[in-house]
Amino acid sequence: MISPKEERDPNQLRRACTRFLGGHYRQPLRQILSALAETAEPDEWGDMYGSGDVIANFEQEIAQTLGKEAAVFMPSGTMCQQIALRILTEQRQIPRVAFHPTCHLDTHEEMGYQRLHHLEGVRVGSPYQLMTMSNLQALREPLGALLLELPQREIGGQLPAWEDLTAISDWAREQKIATHLDGARLWECQPFYGRDYAEIAALFDTVYVSFYKVLGGIAGAILAGPADVIAQARVWQRRHGGNLVQLFPYVLSARQGFAERLGRMESYHAKAQAIAAVLTAFPQVELVPDPPQTNMMHLYLRGDAKKLAEAMLDVAEETGTWLLNFLAPAELPAYVKTELTIGDASLDIPTEEVASLFTLLFKQAGMD
Amino acid sequence: MISPKEERDPNQLRRACTRFLGGHYRQPLRQILSALAETAEPDEWGDMYGSGDVIANFEQEIAQTLGKEAAVFMPSGTMCQQIALRILTEQRQIPRVAFHPTCHLDTHEEMGYQRLHHLEGVRVGSPYQLMTMSNLQALREPLGALLLELPQREIGGQLPAWEDLTAISDWAREQKIATHLDGARLWECQPFYGRDYAEIAALFDTVYVSFYKVLGGIAGAILAGPADVIAQARVWQRRHGGNLVQLFPYVLSARQGFAERLGRMESYHAKAQAIAAVLTAFPQVELVPDPPQTNMMHLYLRGDAKKLAEAMLDVAEETGTWLLNFLAPAELPAYVKTELTIGDASLDIPTEEVASLFTLLFKQAGMD
Repeated sequence: MISPKEERDPNQLRRACTRFLGGHYRQPLRQILSALAETAEPDEWGDMYGSGDVIANFEQEIAQTLGKEAAVFMPSGTMCQQIALRILTEQRQIPRVAFHPTCHLDTHEEMGYQRLHHLEGVRVGSPYQLMTMSNLQALREPLGALLLELPQREIGGQLPAWEDLTAISDWAREQKIATHLDGARLWECQPFYGRDYAEIAALFDTVYVSFYKVLGGIAGAILAGPADVIAQARVWQRRHGGNLVQLFPYVLSARQGFAERLGRMESYHAKAQAIAAVLTAFPQVELVPDPPQTNMMHLYLRGDAKKLAEAMLDVAEETGTWLLNFLAPAELPAYVKTELTIGDASLDIPTEEVASLFTLLFKQAGMD
Repeated sequence: MISPKEERDPNQLRRACTRFLGGHYRQPLRQILSALAETAEPDEWGDMYGSGDVIANFEQEIAQTLGKEAAVFMPSGTMCQQIALRILTEQRQIPRVAFHPTCHLDTHEEMGYQRLHHLEGVRVGSPYQLMTMSNLQALREPLGALLLELPQREIGGQLPAWEDLTAISDWAREQKIATHLDGARLWECQPFYGRDYAEIAALFDTVYVSFYKVLGGIAGAILAGPADVIAQARVWQRRHGGNLVQLFPYVLSARQGFAERLGRMESYHAKAQAIAAVLTAFPQVELVPDPPQTNMMHLYLRGDAKKLAEAMLDVAEETGTWLLNFLAPAELPAYVKTELTIGDASLDIPTEEVASLFTLLFKQAGMD
């Protein structure tokens, strides 16, 4: 049953859905918090300005996973990364950072790295491809730091081959350029590289990881690296206003996500491959990358964004299934772009049903 | 029964206490979170990078309470205040801020206002007294902003008379100096001034308030002010790494503390007065201020810090009562300094018993 278009509220329709092609299941706050309460041991007490067992033990667990001396929990990756780059470039007295043109610092942080830290950015390579060694070798200015993002989110979670990655890391070290890893989605690289997280992290001086994406935490991030850098990062964390009196809701949810979901990366990745094989068979769909290298892919749908949005609501009403989280303009006007990340909820959608869901979507959008 | 000193763990002893002279009752994380879950309506869903009903409605409630056009919820006061001062001083193109010598920005934030925002600080007046009009009139440099803290925490929560406060605000406006209120403990001023919060806040361009102090939230702060300033503050919040994907645990606990505890300020204040009257009768005790003007006071105890610390543990073991949260050096070496803030737990200690508790404390410390 499909309601008149003008009466439909996308948020309500979404909440009424019981199945979701992307990500994890969402819950009302009451459920999230009461489930979170259960994860705390009866004798666990709060942190205090970054000290206390709950936060210290989790920092140590992540430092160990990443093979780094030390780690600090912060409210956000924005804070972790600006701070890491400030410290690394001050060590080298060159306030200049090279990164991919779609780097989070340069695209989603209101240029905080410039306005708060007076760092200069150098965009390397094409926004539509991975950064290459020859892109880097073409640079002509001294660099304080090089930031790499694994996987490269804005191009569908692409990953360089291991040899390309180690070659870039070696090159940077020869040049005495510090290396920082934007590992917002590092957990999702494991099936592709088939290596320990510590082995990947060893290519970088500092590593930022996130807990609210594939791990499903409420928010929160960790910066890991040498002990002296992390000690200094705590000073900058206070300057940023991120040394909160209590961070435990984020720490507990990060800890829970890490314990529960880290072991699911292989199955998320396998499901992404399976769904991609179904989607790529549609002439209306282009995938980037195809096949996916992580549990993420970008979908380019040849059609009209407004019609697709309405058709998504039709599918939601008819099948109780929410397909796509956003529809954005693509470089080619004939296409609409979206991102699909495989999570817990995706695993519950039979792969063979994905074909019929998209057939219905394209029919409702007049794209069949 | 008092255990051998070397076997005592202050943290364990504190947790074993059932009564606390200062502040609110503390709970393990499991209890805090399950109680917090109950405060959420069954159909309340999370925020997303600062948007969503739960956060927007609370921001509006606080804006209204403070009589300001707009408000933004941030993780910390450190973030609120640096951002407010950056915006206000940029408007006036004078990156210089005057504040009391004990100002939080200048004493507890690793000089973030200098290192992140390149603001210059001007310390006004004595660290041991409230800032006066003549202190301000003696300044000889142009100022972009003036920050006042109400109450002045580091001198025991002192408050200027209403006429002195309005005179300073009028002076600043005449001089075209922006005014910002550090209202970390603004809620606690109400009994002293007997005026609406909006009337106090009207003396300032921007106001920061906190939710984890007397209101007992987990963490979190709000900056309120003109709509254009708050809109700009949201941009800076993102730069600081404070525009978190989800802030709901802090928002819900702030909302709960605001609803439950705002009406208790009069009783906290009355209890502070009553306890102060008992304490000031001891020759070993000096109070600042005497009598207290809010629910807070500073205690100067004439004695030895180590002996007092052990005596506190004796009292905790004998009576199950935790007396003081810290013991710090004072200007005069013969004294030890501490802070007493009246909260829910304090209300449950009969005032007449305070005398016997301190008599025991001083006896155990050899200060009787």
